[in-house]
Amino acid sequence: MLREVGLLSEEDLAAIREGLEALAREHAAGEWEISLADEDVHTALESRLTERTDEAGARLHLGRSRNDQVLAALRLYLRDAVAALAAGAREAADALDELGRREKETALPGYTHLQQAMPSSVPLWAGGFAAELRDDAEGIEACARRIEKSPLGSAAGYGVPLLPIDRESTRQALGFAVTQEPVTAVQLSRGKAEAQVLFEITLLMQDLGRLAADLVLFAAAEFAFVSLPAAMTTGSSIMPQKRNPDVFELVRGRTATAQGCLAEALAIPAKLTSGYHRDLQLLKAPLFRGIDLAQETLAILAAALPGVRFQPERIRLEPGLRAAEEAYALVLAEGIPFREAYRRIGKRFRIEET
Amino acid sequence: MLREVGLLSEEDLAAIREGLEALAREHAAGEWEISLADEDVHTALESRLTERTDEAGARLHLGRSRNDQVLAALRLYLRDAVAALAAGAREAADALDELGRREKETALPGYTHLQQAMPSSVPLWAGGFAAELRDDAEGIEACARRIEKSPLGSAAGYGVPLLPIDRESTRQALGFAVTQEPVTAVQLSRGKAEAQVLFEITLLMQDLGRLAADLVLFAAAEFAFVSLPAAMTTGSSIMPQKRNPDVFELVRGRTATAQGCLAEALAIPAKLTSGYHRDLQLLKAPLFRGIDLAQETLAILAAALPGVRFQPERIRLEPGLRAAEEAYALVLAEGIPFREAYRRIGKRFRIEET
Amino acid sequence: MLREVGLLSEEDLAAIREGLEALAREHAAGEWEISLADEDVHTALESRLTERTDEAGARLHLGRSRNDQVLAALRLYLRDAVAALAAGAREAADALDELGRREKETALPGYTHLQQAMPSSVPLWAGGFAAELRDDAEGIEACARRIEKSPLGSAAGYGVPLLPIDRESTRQALGFAVTQEPVTAVQLSRGKAEAQVLFEITLLMQDLGRLAADLVLFAAAEFAFVSLPAAMTTGSSIMPQKRNPDVFELVRGRTATAQGCLAEALAIPAKLTSGYHRDLQLLKAPLFRGIDLAQETLAILAAALPGVRFQPERIRLEPGLRAAEEAYALVLAEGIPFREAYRRIGKRFRIEET
Amino acid sequence: MLREVGLLSEEDLAAIREGLEALAREHAAGEWEISLADEDVHTALESRLTERTDEAGARLHLGRSRNDQVLAALRLYLRDAVAALAAGAREAADALDELGRREKETALPGYTHLQQAMPSSVPLWAGGFAAELRDDAEGIEACARRIEKSPLGSAAGYGVPLLPIDRESTRQALGFAVTQEPVTAVQLSRGKAEAQVLFEITLLMQDLGRLAADLVLFAAAEFAFVSLPAAMTTGSSIMPQKRNPDVFELVRGRTATAQGCLAEALAIPAKLTSGYHRDLQLLKAPLFRGIDLAQETLAILAAALPGVRFQPERIRLEPGLRAAEEAYALVLAEGIPFREAYRRIGKRFRIEET
Repeated sequence: MLREVGLLSEEDLAAIREGLEALAREHAAGEWEISLADEDVHTALESRLTERTDEAGARLHLGRSRNDQVLAALRLYLRDAVAALAAGAREAADALDELGRREKETALPGYTHLQQAMPSSVPLWAGGFAAELRDDAEGIEACARRIEKSPLGSAAGYGVPLLPIDRESTRQALGFAVTQEPVTAVQLSRGKAEAQVLFEITLLMQDLGRLAADLVLFAAAEFAFVSLPAAMTTGSSIMPQKRNPDVFELVRGRTATAQGCLAEALAIPAKLTSGYHRDLQLLKAPLFRGIDLAQETLAILAAALPGVRFQPERIRLEPGLRAAEEAYALVLAEGIPFREAYRRIGKRFRIEET
Repeated sequence: MLREVGLLSEEDLAAIREGLEALAREHAAGEWEISLADEDVHTALESRLTERTDEAGARLHLGRSRNDQVLAALRLYLRDAVAALAAGAREAADALDELGRREKETALPGYTHLQQAMPSSVPLWAGGFAAELRDDAEGIEACARRIEKSPLGSAAGYGVPLLPIDRESTRQALGFAVTQEPVTAVQLSRGKAEAQVLFEITLLMQDLGRLAADLVLFAAAEFAFVSLPAAMTTGSSIMPQKRNPDVFELVRGRTATAQGCLAEALAIPAKLTSGYHRDLQLLKAPLFRGIDLAQETLAILAAALPGVRFQPERIRLEPGLRAAEEAYALVLAEGIPFREAYRRIGKRFRIEET
Repeated sequence: MLREVGLLSEEDLAAIREGLEALAREHAAGEWEISLADEDVHTALESRLTERTDEAGARLHLGRSRNDQVLAALRLYLRDAVAALAAGAREAADALDELGRREKETALPGYTHLQQAMPSSVPLWAGGFAAELRDDAEGIEACARRIEKSPLGSAAGYGVPLLPIDRESTRQALGFAVTQEPVTAVQLSRGKAEAQVLFEITLLMQDLGRLAADLVLFAAAEFAFVSLPAAMTTGSSIMPQKRNPDVFELVRGRTATAQGCLAEALAIPAKLTSGYHRDLQLLKAPLFRGIDLAQETLAILAAALPGVRFQPERIRLEPGLRAAEEAYALVLAEGIPFREAYRRIGKRFRIEET
Repeated sequence: MLREVGLLSEEDLAAIREGLEALAREHAAGEWEISLADEDVHTALESRLTERTDEAGARLHLGRSRNDQVLAALRLYLRDAVAALAAGAREAADALDELGRREKETALPGYTHLQQAMPSSVPLWAGGFAAELRDDAEGIEACARRIEKSPLGSAAGYGVPLLPIDRESTRQALGFAVTQEPVTAVQLSRGKAEAQVLFEITLLMQDLGRLAADLVLFAAAEFAFVSLPAAMTTGSSIMPQKRNPDVFELVRGRTATAQGCLAEALAIPAKLTSGYHRDLQLLKAPLFRGIDLAQETLAILAAALPGVRFQPERIRLEPGLRAAEEAYALVLAEGIPFREAYRRIGKRFRIEET
């Protein structure tokens, strides 16, 4: 873009391009690393480039600031992270559908209040979670609205005076959907895309955590609805008879971690006056922690779900499970109001109305 | 719908319809109220209806459960709440644009790290917040994806066996975008739309809170950039000289309340096994508190912003404010690299590098 | 105190005292109420007092500010609230001990990872929770350290110049443990006692929530360890066979509310510059909500626990429950190392070590 | 203890002792490390010990479980961490007192609502924060009540059947204040000491964050109350004139991190049924992160505070700053009621009452 608007000569552009490509090759080959003295990746690249290109490198930092550069890099990273997370959530949903197909004949009690309520089945149970994971995938993808805004050209948050830079050109080159306007909105928006990604990760982790809570419960001896393969369980240091569903407990526990990341990210920009503050740099820690957490957890579940086996012979349906169905049958057979049918069936269970 | 599929006679439908309309009229006229003994609005209506229609009322609760009914009512409420919040955020954005137009000649320092950094202006300052409030409005509207799913027909979470109910028909009648499938997803999704609304409210409240933080700062004697009308300030019980910007302090403080509502709503469904649990009913308290908070705060700001007056004669721009601009001018005039221009301008400020 | 240091005449003191006593009597008799126009209770009292005592009332507000007055009133309220909460937690602990005595012969499986692990009993189960509730009571009482600091005399946060007020005298009169020094610490400390009370309430609510989670689980048909009296359960609108443990689900769900109150209270003073800000007034909402929540929940449990009945005939102990004990017996009988005994007993359970 | 009660022979005890001491020496010398295959430090030690002592090592794990072992190790770690944190907070308080002494003549405005309110001074300003940091130190030390409970002998949470172990003896050997009783309370208490430490860290970080917020404000050009040494500030990549107070911004931002750690730690044990769950292992991440955060931040401030210089010539006191003092003077001089003096002084400031 600097070349297009005449702020960089053809020769300098070529020198910068070659220099950056060489640095990329050398970095990939392990020939240099970013050191603490480099401050950050941007300074590291610029100073190395300047060493080898002389003046051309010193022309690199024109019309931009570390503030808009760092944010552009972060949004490009988020673009990929969001795509990977949505894909991971959909793979977990597919694994649940596969589980539903594998055990399509297995009846399960449907619970409300952890009481057996109405008939359900493994496909219905797995399908409910699959639908919610796909909802999470859509939610994660919807973060694109806040991610796909080009900050470039806002510089330190107040634009670039005098220079004829072309924000539209850099937006297109990097594939952003819109150019963020006005320039003062850019730094005010810091943390919002990050928080939205962490919010959707929290919903995803909560769905996974509730799935895990079901499996921990179903693996208890009193339920014994599922058996878990040895590879997914651990033993005890003093109780030789035990196999523990650690994998699923950790998935459940990690909902707390997602909540913590979100709380931290929301608190960082809170109450700050407008304009960039160094506080905002702290957003990266909970953001990366939350994204890694979700990706790891999805990978763990993808490995664990194929090993889950329901044990139909152990699943006992309570006699009352079909009471609502029987009431509906009475309504259909005798044309009586539902409340009347409800009372008649209810009597069989000798339940005193309070 | 019950009539369409033959589960309700024409007469019963007419009786129910008339009965409900009469109850609505009488309630509007203050002739009856929901009492604690009624359990909730649904039972209150059904029992009053049954009293006056005899059997027809007893046929009302067919093919549905309090679980899907309550959720349908909540989502209809959220549809309206979300529309009102988005409209309120856009009105506040308009008020900021108006402020920018009213003071379009007023220069302001642009800050980074709370240090004067580059030239800005009231329109740029107000326009940045206006853009973010419009972003919040879009974020709030995007909650529709989770709100506009029809839960009706999922009953207690496991559907309605035997009865030929038509979920598509009730979906259309209430204007939902899709029918939520499978039925087991409905109760698993409890809290997700609520949390998303509260998340977007938190972002909105944080933008308003940062706007308020700026105004509190600008009203300090050391800045004195703005004067606030007496109606928006309060006095002190011992310091007769003081006028305090309470309204804006409360707006800033309320970002904490929004964060608290979101944290509560996220924690309620966490780790619950699948199926309905009574815990989920607690979602309403933080949801309503958060929505009321945002609506009130937007109304307060709509009243307060027109009274904000900048005092251009008090706004002092630091001499260094144009340093970046001067460096750019050097680049343009002499064709030197930006880093060289930066060093030359920097020398003028006699800053000792450490 | 104003009298002691000579800032108030004997006559004025008598007039103020009589006036305040009369206002108290009249308020108790419902003859006046604080109205919105009164601003707050302090202004309400002062203006009514001034009406009836003439000059004496106008001398009341000497040497103090609403800031230190409000804080003193809040700390006196917290003193009582903390005592009531600690007493309530101890009563709940007593009710658990009583339950343990009532069912002292009832064996229970002890769980780890929700797997039957080692033998336990109702007294051990109830006693564990009772010990933690007593720990919570001590934690709540330890908040006194931050509550029992007298703010009086710090006025708006910078003391009272010129006047010979005696902070020690008001401290003693109100029974505070220490006079908070220096005066600038008073407003900085706002929110710390409040947050500590809410933190300890959160621990208390979490202990109660985990107790409730156990009882919801024990009431599931698959466990059926306890029966809950009808008065503590509710029916279903479509499933006539069901009895739901709503009371305990609500107790469990309320742990989220406590977390929300704490998060809100911590976020309110965060990042504020020193000195009083109006934001701090918002602390009261989460504080009162959290205290009411805990008191109500303790009252509910006090009513509910005596009705809990274990059903020993339904409690099945898994055969492996005594495996650790058997390994210990082998160690004692044969003098072999524990690891050797663990391996021998483990073989019986045919568990392959991973 | 195992030796005392006869469960370990003198020879085995000597072999174990020598073996452990040798392992400690070798570990300190870098001769072995804990690897992933070792599971954890406890297994790593036991397996290495068993290799070299034969049977004696296999006798080590008698009368204990990884559950009580891990918890004992954590509490010993917390004992040291809490002492270090309290000492660090007191050092920061001392540094503030030193600053107050160094600038004991420097007058400052005292603010309420960020408006100049009454006269203050550097010693009063610094002394307020110093008092609160000492309050935080006491709060951190008060965590000892929950830390100093010996879990040893509770094993997996249900005690050690048959074996004549002596819990009192291990308690004394490790210096715990009490033996935690009953054994079922031990696992229920998991997370409570951790959360209390993180809560007190949050209060500490908030006090430090508010101190930092003051310094960031005082360093703004509009205040210019302080100058910060170059070593504590950074430059800008495009604005050569700027010096940014990054250190203090990061301290302020880190209050959010502390809040996030606390939220995570509180959410982990929430709603879990009684007994150990693997989720609880996740407590360590926020705990260590929070403790490291506080220790680093205290170290940073200890280095930064001595470089803070107030610039008395730049500190402008508003004319109204002595209005309350003047009102008091009128009360003393003329014996009029305070309200009358307040009105008279107020008139001078020509403030229109609304």
